[in-house]
Amino acid sequence: MRETIRVRTAAPLARDLARVRKLEALAVRVSSLLSMEGRTGRRVTALLASLRPPELAAVFRLLPPSQRVKLVRALDPGRAAEIIEGLPRGLRREVLEGLPLKEAAEILRRLSSDDSADVLLELDPKRAEAILNTLSPEERERARRLISYPDDTAGGRMATEFVTATEDMTVEEAIEHLRKEAPFAESVYYLYVVDKEGRLVGVLSLRELILAPGGAKLGEIMRRDVVAVRVDQDQEEVAKVVAENDLLAVPVVDQGGRLVGIVTADDVMDILTEEAFEDLAKFAGAEVGLAPLWSAVLRRVPWLLICMVGELLTGRVIKGFEGVLRRVMALSFFMPVIMATGGNAGTQSLATTVRRVALGELSYVRAFKVVLRELGAAVILGAFMGMLLGVAGWVWLGSTKVALVAGAAICGAVVVGALQGTVVPIVLTRMGLDPALASGPFVTTLSDITSIFIYFLLAHAIVGRM
Amino acid sequence: MRETIRVRTAAPLARDLARVRKLEALAVRVSSLLSMEGRTGRRVTALLASLRPPELAAVFRLLPPSQRVKLVRALDPGRAAEIIEGLPRGLRREVLEGLPLKEAAEILRRLSSDDSADVLLELDPKRAEAILNTLSPEERERARRLISYPDDTAGGRMATEFVTATEDMTVEEAIEHLRKEAPFAESVYYLYVVDKEGRLVGVLSLRELILAPGGAKLGEIMRRDVVAVRVDQDQEEVAKVVAENDLLAVPVVDQGGRLVGIVTADDVMDILTEEAFEDLAKFAGAEVGLAPLWSAVLRRVPWLLICMVGELLTGRVIKGFEGVLRRVMALSFFMPVIMATGGNAGTQSLATTVRRVALGELSYVRAFKVVLRELGAAVILGAFMGMLLGVAGWVWLGSTKVALVAGAAICGAVVVGALQGTVVPIVLTRMGLDPALASGPFVTTLSDITSIFIYFLLAHAIVGRM
Repeated sequence: MRETIRVRTAAPLARDLARVRKLEALAVRVSSLLSMEGRTGRRVTALLASLRPPELAAVFRLLPPSQRVKLVRALDPGRAAEIIEGLPRGLRREVLEGLPLKEAAEILRRLSSDDSADVLLELDPKRAEAILNTLSPEERERARRLISYPDDTAGGRMATEFVTATEDMTVEEAIEHLRKEAPFAESVYYLYVVDKEGRLVGVLSLRELILAPGGAKLGEIMRRDVVAVRVDQDQEEVAKVVAENDLLAVPVVDQGGRLVGIVTADDVMDILTEEAFEDLAKFAGAEVGLAPLWSAVLRRVPWLLICMVGELLTGRVIKGFEGVLRRVMALSFFMPVIMATGGNAGTQSLATTVRRVALGELSYVRAFKVVLRELGAAVILGAFMGMLLGVAGWVWLGSTKVALVAGAAICGAVVVGALQGTVVPIVLTRMGLDPALASGPFVTTLSDITSIFIYFLLAHAIVGRM
Repeated sequence: MRETIRVRTAAPLARDLARVRKLEALAVRVSSLLSMEGRTGRRVTALLASLRPPELAAVFRLLPPSQRVKLVRALDPGRAAEIIEGLPRGLRREVLEGLPLKEAAEILRRLSSDDSADVLLELDPKRAEAILNTLSPEERERARRLISYPDDTAGGRMATEFVTATEDMTVEEAIEHLRKEAPFAESVYYLYVVDKEGRLVGVLSLRELILAPGGAKLGEIMRRDVVAVRVDQDQEEVAKVVAENDLLAVPVVDQGGRLVGIVTADDVMDILTEEAFEDLAKFAGAEVGLAPLWSAVLRRVPWLLICMVGELLTGRVIKGFEGVLRRVMALSFFMPVIMATGGNAGTQSLATTVRRVALGELSYVRAFKVVLRELGAAVILGAFMGMLLGVAGWVWLGSTKVALVAGAAICGAVVVGALQGTVVPIVLTRMGLDPALASGPFVTTLSDITSIFIYFLLAHAIVGRM
C-alpha cells in the first residue's frame, strides 16, 4: 500500500540524530549500489526515485565527492537541478565542475534564474563562459544581467520568472494569460500589473484574481499601493519587508520603478536562516559562513588581538597592585572567578540587548527601560553571587577580609559587566554603527579590565593595610 | 499625486536609525493629536488611515500604554485586529485588557484562529472566559480546542481557516467552491483534498488548479504525496519542514491523519526569527525571549553558578602553584590574557561548530573533518598569538623565561580551548543532548581551568627552579 501522508517526525539539533543515522545508512546503500551497478543500474534508479528532494540532498552531502558527481548523473536533469538548487554554494560548484559541459548546461537551464546566476558566479570563469555559450542569446543576456548584481542584494536573490499584466486586461483575460505563462513562472501567487514602460503600477494576489468577477478590468480591482524593494537593497532588508508585510513574494524594481524580478518566501526563509548564523558568528567574533581555513583564521585574529591588548591592560592593573598581591597571595585565587563572572554577566546582557535592538526597540524611552531592567537584574544577580562567593571564600580560606573583598568585588563586576553589555550596543546603534561590533569578546575584555580594577581597589582599601 | 510604489529603504539594525527617528516623530504627532482631538478626531483619523500596518504597529509600540488603548479604539476593528496580530505577546494582552469587553471580542473575532487562541491564553482567565461567552457556540468550540495545544507546537501555531475539497470534485467545481470559501480562509494557496473521515489524502496548489483542465477530477490530478506535520510537533521542526520543501503552507494532521489546520509561510518566518534569538540567548546563557525581570534572573543564575564553581577550581589550581607564583609575581600579570584568549578561541570554535551541527553535518566523517579544520585553525592562531605575546612580554618585563612561559601557554590555551569548543557540542549531539548545553559560559569556564593549568605547569617547568 502506498504511504500517502508523509508526516515528518524529524527534529533539528539533538533530536535530528535518528534522522541523521537513517540518512547515513541510506547514503551507504546508495554508495554501494553506485559502485556495484554504476549510475544507470536498476536498483539505484529505483532507490533514488523513492527519495524526496530534501532526503536526496542530504544523501548527496553524505557521499564522498567522487560519488556525488555519479549521483547527479544518475538523475534526470530536472531532479538534478532540484538537488543542486538546495546545496550550499561550495558544493554546487564542486559538482558542476565535475560534470561534462553539456550536462552541466542542461542542469543550469532548469534552475530558476536566481540560482543559475549564483552558480555561474561560483564557477571557474572559463567554464562559466563555456556554459553561457551553450545558451540561447536571450537566456545568455538575462544570465549576464543577473550576474551583475551583488549576491546579498535583492538583485542577487531575485528570480526573473514572474507574470505581468496590464491595467486594461479583464480578469478572464488575465487568468487565460496566466495559464499560458504560469508554467514558466517561479511563483504565480501574485499577478503584477505594469504600464507600457514596464513600471510596476499595481498588484493582485492569485486569490483576489480568482474571487473577482470575470469581466472586471485589472485596473479597477488591483491594489495600487504595492510594497516593493529596490534591486540594490540588502537581502536582510528584503527579508524584513517580506516578513513584516506577510508577503509570499516581493517585487523588485530598478531605479526607474521598472519591475525586474521577484524575491519569494522560500528565498526569504533561506535569508533569515543565513542571517541568524551570521549574528551568532559575529557575536562570538568568528567567521561568517563555512569559510575556508585561512579566511576563518583571518576573521578571528582581530578579535583575539583586541582581546589580547585589553587583557595586557588587565595585567598592567594587576602589576599596579603588586604590593597588595604580594602581601595577600590569596587574592590571586579569586581573580579568575571575578573576571569570568563579570564577563558572563556582560555577555548575557549583551545577548538580550542585541535582540531588543534587532526588534527595533530603539527609542530613547525604550532604551532607558532596557538599561533599567538589565541594571535591576544585575543588582539582584550581583548581590546573590556576592553572598555566595563571600561564604565560599570564608569557608575555603578562613579569611574574613579576603572573603569580604571577593564578595563585594564579584557583585561590582556583575553590575558593571551587565551595564557594559547593555549600554555599549545601544550607544553603537545610536551612533549609526553595527551593534554587532560589541561582540562577546569585546564586552568580555572590557569587563575584565574593570572587574580586576574594582577587585584590587577594594582589596587595597580593605586588606591593603592588614 | 498619489505615491503608487512604496519602495522601502529602511534597513535593520544600525541603518534602522533613520526609520526609527521618523517613526518616533510620527508617534509624537499621533500622541499629541490623540490628546487634542480625542480618538474620533478628523486629523487623527486621516493620519492613521495613511499609515500601513507595519508603520501603525511601530507607532503603537512607541506610545505610552494609556494612549495605546486610545489608538486601538480610534481604528475600525479590522485594522485594529491587523495591528494586534503583529504585536509581541505581552503587549497584546495589555491592550485587550484595557478595552471594553465588546470591543475586545469584536477584535478577537477578526483575528485568525491561531492568533485569537494565543491572545485568549495570554488574558486573565476570567476575562478570557467572558470574551469566549460572547462568541457563537462553534466559534467558542474551535477556540477552546486551539487553546488546548502548547504554544510552540504545530497545533499552537496553526490556523484553522483552510479550504478542503473531495476527490470526486471537478476542477471547475473546486474553483467555484474556493470562490465561496476563500474569503474566510487564512491562505488559499493550496487546496487540500480529504476523504469522508476528514483524512488528508491529497493536495493541489492554486497554481496547479488554475492550470488544470476544468473538467478533470481532483482525484486524478492531485498530488498524493503530501508533506504534513503532526499537531504535536515542535514549531522548529515545522519551520524546517516548510523551509526544506519550499512550501507556502504546511497542513497539520492529528494522530488519525485528519486535517486540523495549516501553518503558513508568514508564521514560519516568525518562528525562524524567534528561534534565531533563542539560539543566541542559549549561546550566552541568557533568558529566551523578552522575559520579565525575575525569569530573566532565574534563567541566568545556573550559568553564573556553574561558571563560579569552575572558576573556583581555577583558583584552586593557582593555589596549588602558589610557590611558583610567590617567587615570580610577574606570572600573575599574564593570567588574564591567557585565560581570556583561550576562552575566546573556544567560543569562536563553538559558534562555527554549532552552525555545522544545525546544518545537519553530523556524520562521523564530517564530524572528524570539522574537528580537524578547527584544530588546524587553532594551531595557526595559537602559534601567532604565542609569538606576539612572547615578544610583548619580553619587551614589557625583560624576562626571557616569563615571556617564554606566557607565549607557550597562550598557544596551548588557544588549541585546547578550540578543541573544547568543537568537541563538546559534537559529543553532546551524538549523545542525543542539545548542543546548546555547551553554551559560551560553559566552554569558557572549562577552558579557563585548563588554560591556567597549562600555564602554571609550564611555569613550574621553566621558571620554577629559577
